[in-house]
Amino acid sequence: MSYAGGRHFLQIPGPTNVPDSVLRAMSAQTIDHRGPEFAELGRAVLDGVKPVFGTQGPVVIYPASGTGAWEAALVNTLSPGDRVLCFETGHFASLWQEMATALGLEVDFVPGDWRHGVSPEVVAERLEQDTGHTIKAVCVVHNETSTGVTSRVAEVRAAIDAAAHPALLLVDTISSLGSIDYRHDEWGVDVTVAGSQKGLMLPPGLSFNAISEKALNASRSARLPKSFWNWQPILAANERGFFPYTPATNLLYGLREALRLLNAEGLDAVFARHIRHGEATRAAVNGWGLEVLCADEREYSSSLTAIMVPEGHDADKIRAIILDRFDMSLGAGLGKLSGRVFRIGHLGSFNDLMLAGTLAGVQMGLTLAGVRIDPTGLNAALDRLQSL
Amino acid sequence: MSYAGGRHFLQIPGPTNVPDSVLRAMSAQTIDHRGPEFAELGRAVLDGVKPVFGTQGPVVIYPASGTGAWEAALVNTLSPGDRVLCFETGHFASLWQEMATALGLEVDFVPGDWRHGVSPEVVAERLEQDTGHTIKAVCVVHNETSTGVTSRVAEVRAAIDAAAHPALLLVDTISSLGSIDYRHDEWGVDVTVAGSQKGLMLPPGLSFNAISEKALNASRSARLPKSFWNWQPILAANERGFFPYTPATNLLYGLREALRLLNAEGLDAVFARHIRHGEATRAAVNGWGLEVLCADEREYSSSLTAIMVPEGHDADKIRAIILDRFDMSLGAGLGKLSGRVFRIGHLGSFNDLMLAGTLAGVQMGLTLAGVRIDPTGLNAALDRLQSL
Amino acid sequence: MSYAGGRHFLQIPGPTNVPDSVLRAMSAQTIDHRGPEFAELGRAVLDGVKPVFGTQGPVVIYPASGTGAWEAALVNTLSPGDRVLCFETGHFASLWQEMATALGLEVDFVPGDWRHGVSPEVVAERLEQDTGHTIKAVCVVHNETSTGVTSRVAEVRAAIDAAAHPALLLVDTISSLGSIDYRHDEWGVDVTVAGSQKGLMLPPGLSFNAISEKALNASRSARLPKSFWNWQPILAANERGFFPYTPATNLLYGLREALRLLNAEGLDAVFARHIRHGEATRAAVNGWGLEVLCADEREYSSSLTAIMVPEGHDADKIRAIILDRFDMSLGAGLGKLSGRVFRIGHLGSFNDLMLAGTLAGVQMGLTLAGVRIDPTGLNAALDRLQSL
Amino acid sequence: MSYAGGRHFLQIPGPTNVPDSVLRAMSAQTIDHRGPEFAELGRAVLDGVKPVFGTQGPVVIYPASGTGAWEAALVNTLSPGDRVLCFETGHFASLWQEMATALGLEVDFVPGDWRHGVSPEVVAERLEQDTGHTIKAVCVVHNETSTGVTSRVAEVRAAIDAAAHPALLLVDTISSLGSIDYRHDEWGVDVTVAGSQKGLMLPPGLSFNAISEKALNASRSARLPKSFWNWQPILAANERGFFPYTPATNLLYGLREALRLLNAEGLDAVFARHIRHGEATRAAVNGWGLEVLCADEREYSSSLTAIMVPEGHDADKIRAIILDRFDMSLGAGLGKLSGRVFRIGHLGSFNDLMLAGTLAGVQMGLTLAGVRIDPTGLNAALDRLQSL
Repeated sequence: MSYAGGRHFLQIPGPTNVPDSVLRAMSAQTIDHRGPEFAELGRAVLDGVKPVFGTQGPVVIYPASGTGAWEAALVNTLSPGDRVLCFETGHFASLWQEMATALGLEVDFVPGDWRHGVSPEVVAERLEQDTGHTIKAVCVVHNETSTGVTSRVAEVRAAIDAAAHPALLLVDTISSLGSIDYRHDEWGVDVTVAGSQKGLMLPPGLSFNAISEKALNASRSARLPKSFWNWQPILAANERGFFPYTPATNLLYGLREALRLLNAEGLDAVFARHIRHGEATRAAVNGWGLEVLCADEREYSSSLTAIMVPEGHDADKIRAIILDRFDMSLGAGLGKLSGRVFRIGHLGSFNDLMLAGTLAGVQMGLTLAGVRIDPTGLNAALDRLQSL
Repeated sequence: MSYAGGRHFLQIPGPTNVPDSVLRAMSAQTIDHRGPEFAELGRAVLDGVKPVFGTQGPVVIYPASGTGAWEAALVNTLSPGDRVLCFETGHFASLWQEMATALGLEVDFVPGDWRHGVSPEVVAERLEQDTGHTIKAVCVVHNETSTGVTSRVAEVRAAIDAAAHPALLLVDTISSLGSIDYRHDEWGVDVTVAGSQKGLMLPPGLSFNAISEKALNASRSARLPKSFWNWQPILAANERGFFPYTPATNLLYGLREALRLLNAEGLDAVFARHIRHGEATRAAVNGWGLEVLCADEREYSSSLTAIMVPEGHDADKIRAIILDRFDMSLGAGLGKLSGRVFRIGHLGSFNDLMLAGTLAGVQMGLTLAGVRIDPTGLNAALDRLQSL
Repeated sequence: MSYAGGRHFLQIPGPTNVPDSVLRAMSAQTIDHRGPEFAELGRAVLDGVKPVFGTQGPVVIYPASGTGAWEAALVNTLSPGDRVLCFETGHFASLWQEMATALGLEVDFVPGDWRHGVSPEVVAERLEQDTGHTIKAVCVVHNETSTGVTSRVAEVRAAIDAAAHPALLLVDTISSLGSIDYRHDEWGVDVTVAGSQKGLMLPPGLSFNAISEKALNASRSARLPKSFWNWQPILAANERGFFPYTPATNLLYGLREALRLLNAEGLDAVFARHIRHGEATRAAVNGWGLEVLCADEREYSSSLTAIMVPEGHDADKIRAIILDRFDMSLGAGLGKLSGRVFRIGHLGSFNDLMLAGTLAGVQMGLTLAGVRIDPTGLNAALDRLQSL
Repeated sequence: MSYAGGRHFLQIPGPTNVPDSVLRAMSAQTIDHRGPEFAELGRAVLDGVKPVFGTQGPVVIYPASGTGAWEAALVNTLSPGDRVLCFETGHFASLWQEMATALGLEVDFVPGDWRHGVSPEVVAERLEQDTGHTIKAVCVVHNETSTGVTSRVAEVRAAIDAAAHPALLLVDTISSLGSIDYRHDEWGVDVTVAGSQKGLMLPPGLSFNAISEKALNASRSARLPKSFWNWQPILAANERGFFPYTPATNLLYGLREALRLLNAEGLDAVFARHIRHGEATRAAVNGWGLEVLCADEREYSSSLTAIMVPEGHDADKIRAIILDRFDMSLGAGLGKLSGRVFRIGHLGSFNDLMLAGTLAGVQMGLTLAGVRIDPTGLNAALDRLQSL
């Protein structure tokens, strides 16, 4: 018998479960985007979002999805033919370098096995070799949504500094921001790219660029053509709480409410909650006798876990059974991981019992799919959740 | 660390989790309750609710909570000093007889141990003794919300018939309607009392009387004073889809949507889902080594389970730990069960993974409270959920 | 061509236009009505509603529509056969006295022409004649929703006092509370009856009794049968923010938000706004050359205006044209006014331009229906609205 | 006394009033954008939106605001240094040509007086002169939001054809689509640009490119750099109802509902309603003795009206009075019209009484600002609204 009744479990690694109060906030009437009431909203979200990035500098908010903010980071800071250093840490890192190529940049793409983050050692090596400083930017995905592997951004920064190299550091935090500790200013990141639909607990439709002083300077001479993504008119209008073209007002209502929720819980508590849920999930995976894709424990993601399915099983069939029988959506293996892994999102507006239900559904689904697992896996997760 | 993030688990035996689409339906603008658009709404819900009661006769909808519908059942059918036969099956059966007394009726209250439903044998006995037919009504609670024990209404009907006694049969289905199979017409019930906030998946604020022909006849000579609850003007106005006084329009919007959801799933599937969830819950309880309050397996409730806590433990402390640590509300022991049981609601808009999360929370809470349990209980529930 | 697009104009004298933020507040998930979060809500609305009644005493909130609160006022304070003094000020006053009769009271019903409020002189006269003090209560409708005529409650109180008569004063404020200045304590009212769906800007489904010390004393010896409406268990539970039976939680969410809105505007400003809108409406009516039903300018209602249609015209046909062509609902003539008047509600969440649109629709509808009017009527209303 | 109570009148020419049912649709939970339920939604909106554009070809939906769709139209069809022919019909036409320049195109910008649309004669002339066919595209704003002047697109098409010139025809319909009759296929438009927040009655955040076969061919050789806006991967993913990157799911829910509403009313009825409202508005303006900005009656906009204020008055002060006293937002004069005009939006979800309220507010505001007007203006508008 297939499912009926109750709520869908949306356990993909984003879009995430949107809190009811955010959905209600979004359903208020749209207002005049040039009026005084809007200016208050604009200032509230433009200021309020900064601590989530760990920055005191400007954060640009686009009425566009996250992929657009990738493009914005590139076209605002770079010129045709510029070299950028990218790392094959997974599906989304690969897509970002494809975008860079399409926009007319030269990409040095360091190959990877999709089980590790960016190697700070390789960053150091490549930049030291680049004595002519032809590399203009290093692009890092903080948390690879396709693999559940994080990159150690602070160590990447240290490597760049050790090489005394002037390249900009561009970081994608689409599936980590608001879930995993992140420090734009402290880590010396130049452009941080983010989206609304993950740790920020909003529907998709907003994206972000946090911008360092150095990036802002670079933007003044960057020659990639740009208009919609151009920071300058946006930053000018933002000073009074406005935007140069019609903003996505109702999503901004939602952002204001989501920031209220994050502050009410406290960012440190939010990060600690995600760490616990990551640990509990891996306890279940290990308890079942299965393997987590991430190969380096320093790089475990707290926002999602990719699980390798044993030889002879198709991860997509397991997901289909779980969707049909238990009304839960899990993330597919993307690109070259297709069919070989599935991904559990445990980020955003989420709690212990939702995680327990999620892991119970995975355990039942694996069993129904004929995967041999040790059913004490779920209890191993509960043991972790019971302790603080 | 206490909970933060995610959704509250509302696992009291009502009010239940309201589907998002019902909440959205309720948030439409109120309309003119004397206009043509209202008449369509009125007819849709007045007709649409009948199959849920298993009746082809009229169902009165009150803009009031369930307790009001208890009063309506009594004041429409009875006269001052009439004798009614009630059974101490739990807290709510006791409250209903108190109401009957307060309204000026004479109550024969058959004592009970709160672990059994109404005994059809005792019904037969009492009515056979009443050769003068002074008993005017038999009041039965179909599903005792305080105990998780059902009464076998069809057998009670058979007992009345066997005694050839003309008493009316009044049945409270507040926590069973829309969750447990119920047949107003087939079982010969005269007034069925129900509320909106349980199996009908609505917020509280609507209540119901399904009315047999015999009850309608009785109402013509019943002399308890009545005005607000009086069936006659309501039934007259209902013929055109209207109500004699301002109806709770927005809750009626919700009812229309809830009926759509029940029909989309299918009432038989809804009942089967509740049966599975009841079985899975009891599998967990037994697996933990604890005892269900309901003492007769023919009377297990599919909509809630009351669990006895071992000597030396306070059920309310366990509930407080679970609320604090896992953001889940469970039902308290009521009246003489206070502190001795807690109740898990598994009715309404609910599914397998929500139940798994619920039972995981109970298991963790019991452990944290120091209750010795066998942690394989949760897996026993999953075994039940895995099979169809 | 009939209407399409835009918002319906709901200009009946209640239910009124519900503010979006109230509808959104109501669409939050229902919570445990016995938990700590509910207690906060309960206390907030039980305390917060008092200033709207102008009382420091208790206000009982029923999960029921306004008609129920009429019944509650009677059954809590009176005994079978008690005499009550009622006045035929309109349709609803007539219904209330019918209810009193149905519940077993003796009604002295003072006839009226439906164009005047209660005469304080007649009150004085009747009570002076009742030297035996057999009249136990005087029932007054503060603002007759069927006629747009108010009664001068303070003067009625003075008349009772002048007669040194101990009768209770029961007042229906269903269509005035939150719109027209009202003072339960200062005017010595014993029970004030109200509903949610008018000046309180909520959907129907809540009703109220504000209770004086004297009424509370009377309730201890009153012998009309009661259970659902009984104040005593409600007041006891209210002390901790709870209710003795399941409250209409989602409407209470709405009430909390509606009280916030009333306080944000300020009750005095709310009353002043209604006065302006009443004046502007009457300016239009006079400008058109038509007549307001209310015959005494001291008794003009600020929340609705009933307009007499000239001989030879059917008010219901005019309303039908307006509904069809301009998507606006107006109030019908009720009872003996059927077809002879229509009513414009200008209460609740309402402003100058909504009123201008409303009056424009009436002016166009009258014209289309062939009623000869002076089209400067609308501009006369605008003249009033332009001044403060 | 300033406003309080009731609904804001949002009468800027977009964003427009969003129907409640669209806001409710948008507040449903976000779903998996790679799952089967999403595919149904995707196909529904991708197919459903075509008739609104008058096309049977593909329509690309961007999770971005309308300005982005301008950029998409250019970067998909053109190469660096290409010549485009633009017309100074108002503020937005000027911004679009600025964008073209910023993206590396050569713009021929035909000057204009902001009171007329694109001259088909000038189009013919310019293209005939361009015997080398160096002009690659003609950019036309169908309905200038800053002026309330439309351009006659069918006549522009005819002029291009008469010149036998191969230039692409790119048309901005941001403030006309869904309000004013428009025919992408019949008029031979190559790219139609639109946004969600005007006639489509949605909040901002979605934008559109309807694409001709010829434009699609052009995109295969166009060399402006592009990634986010690139049609090809979008069209490929759209075939199965999906998108290449995370779509703005909740706005797509809203779009599905808005299309349902447009179809329920009927597109022809929607256009007729806008025509009536434009006529009624101009009747008021003329009645007041003021002048409409649009100088050619063939080019009157049905979605907004820009009104010239007499010498010695500041349009922004008038708007401020109206906002303060009557809680209505009107559009400012933009660019070189600043302070000299104000604009009334009468598009989207709108009806006769909302328009009457709007015009009443303008009439009162003009009077309060000391502008000498004839107060019969409003009645002139009502005369127009009374007839079909």
